[in-house]
Amino acid sequence: MHKINIIKIGGSIIDDDHKLELFLQQFAQLPGKKILVHGGGKLATRMAEQMGIQQEMVEGRRITDGETLRVVTMVYAGYINKNIVAQLKAKDCKAVGICGADADIIRAHKRDALIDYGYVGDIDTVRIKAMKRLLKTVDTIVIAPITHDGAGQLLNTNADTIAQEVAKALSNDYKTQLIFSFEKAGVLLDIADDASVITKLKPKMYKQLKKEERIFAGMIPKLDNAFAALKAGVHRVYIGQAEHLPDLLEGRCGTKIEI
Amino acid sequence: MHKINIIKIGGSIIDDDHKLELFLQQFAQLPGKKILVHGGGKLATRMAEQMGIQQEMVEGRRITDGETLRVVTMVYAGYINKNIVAQLKAKDCKAVGICGADADIIRAHKRDALIDYGYVGDIDTVRIKAMKRLLKTVDTIVIAPITHDGAGQLLNTNADTIAQEVAKALSNDYKTQLIFSFEKAGVLLDIADDASVITKLKPKMYKQLKKEERIFAGMIPKLDNAFAALKAGVHRVYIGQAEHLPDLLEGRCGTKIEI
Repeated sequence: MHKINIIKIGGSIIDDDHKLELFLQQFAQLPGKKILVHGGGKLATRMAEQMGIQQEMVEGRRITDGETLRVVTMVYAGYINKNIVAQLKAKDCKAVGICGADADIIRAHKRDALIDYGYVGDIDTVRIKAMKRLLKTVDTIVIAPITHDGAGQLLNTNADTIAQEVAKALSNDYKTQLIFSFEKAGVLLDIADDASVITKLKPKMYKQLKKEERIFAGMIPKLDNAFAALKAGVHRVYIGQAEHLPDLLEGRCGTKIEI
Repeated sequence: MHKINIIKIGGSIIDDDHKLELFLQQFAQLPGKKILVHGGGKLATRMAEQMGIQQEMVEGRRITDGETLRVVTMVYAGYINKNIVAQLKAKDCKAVGICGADADIIRAHKRDALIDYGYVGDIDTVRIKAMKRLLKTVDTIVIAPITHDGAGQLLNTNADTIAQEVAKALSNDYKTQLIFSFEKAGVLLDIADDASVITKLKPKMYKQLKKEERIFAGMIPKLDNAFAALKAGVHRVYIGQAEHLPDLLEGRCGTKIEI
């Protein structure tokens, strides 16, 4: 079975030209098949402000109204995705940049919740055949966090979830490594101290830490995603710093999630 | 030799939801391999205005400064490209939307002219191997008019020229039809009268009409492109109305360019 790396990079890396450059340099050099899932960073918010679009937030989440969907589609699938692809080529890595609508690869539905989040998509399926066909033509795919409903509607979709669902879908055909990379050294016991990184996290310890409220709230969905991915057949999951990608992939830093 | 259709749609179709819908309905149903090259329409200009970006024009051409490049990348490769892809899927046509940077398919250089047009790209090469590989995975490719220089710089590139260069590059491997579709019925003798369409245009007549200044100035680069494509091995070139695509492809309307 061939290996594949599915790597999510977080927004704060996207926002920092120097960190992004460093990350892409390392990512470009990874051998074999690889998928980069990028978030959006603050550019979409800045753009929306510049255009005079009001950003409505409910419980810390942005509501994706029609205008906001237009902005995130432009920023994520246009500006960020194509700049990453162009920069990767400059580092000798040929990539194809897509969103979930391309080749109908990621199908989602508009979130059905008590709060109307607007054009937010929850994933139904990752079309593995289409993804595998695309991976035959290029070694590297860059995915923007926009999906669609198959009936013409684009949807704003969480990039962590896309990374996890893509990793799960590929794990029957590839030895799949899923990496959540961001600005922190890994899962931390003390959010202010990068030295407090937990090197290995198993479900029992996770449960205990959650109970003691020692896991940073923002990390919980990422960790739930990570454990779910392992249960669904993903080979390895790492969480750690984007600028140390090669070490992270070898388990020499960051947090290894295990079941 | 398999057939392939390379179809350019003009800006005024992109700007009109109803016309675009009608066009995509017909495009989706075309059998075999096909490539859609779209322009940008007025949305990029509107967006730039909304963001307070000054649009500098020199001799009727927009200067693509850094800010404008950001806007056109977002609008062309993000908003327009992904909405077309999502709408095609709703009409049972699976497409992959790309720009010239994806898989390093269209390499260009920053235009070297007396006037500094900014980040405008003149095409050097269409990488035919990459294009053919992509056409093995999907029947339909949608191309946004953004290219790159291979060193990390995205470039704004004329969509007519992209369509022509792609058609030329594919003509060794496919029986290639190139269609420039827009809001008019074809090449007109009287710009105000759709009934004045020239059904067949050969170089001699073209020369004569240009001499008599009976060809609308905006049509001249398109026609130069069309004749150049035929000389380079493209099988057929048609110019005509986007809403009559099937008839246009059968030579039942519009202008057929011949050498």
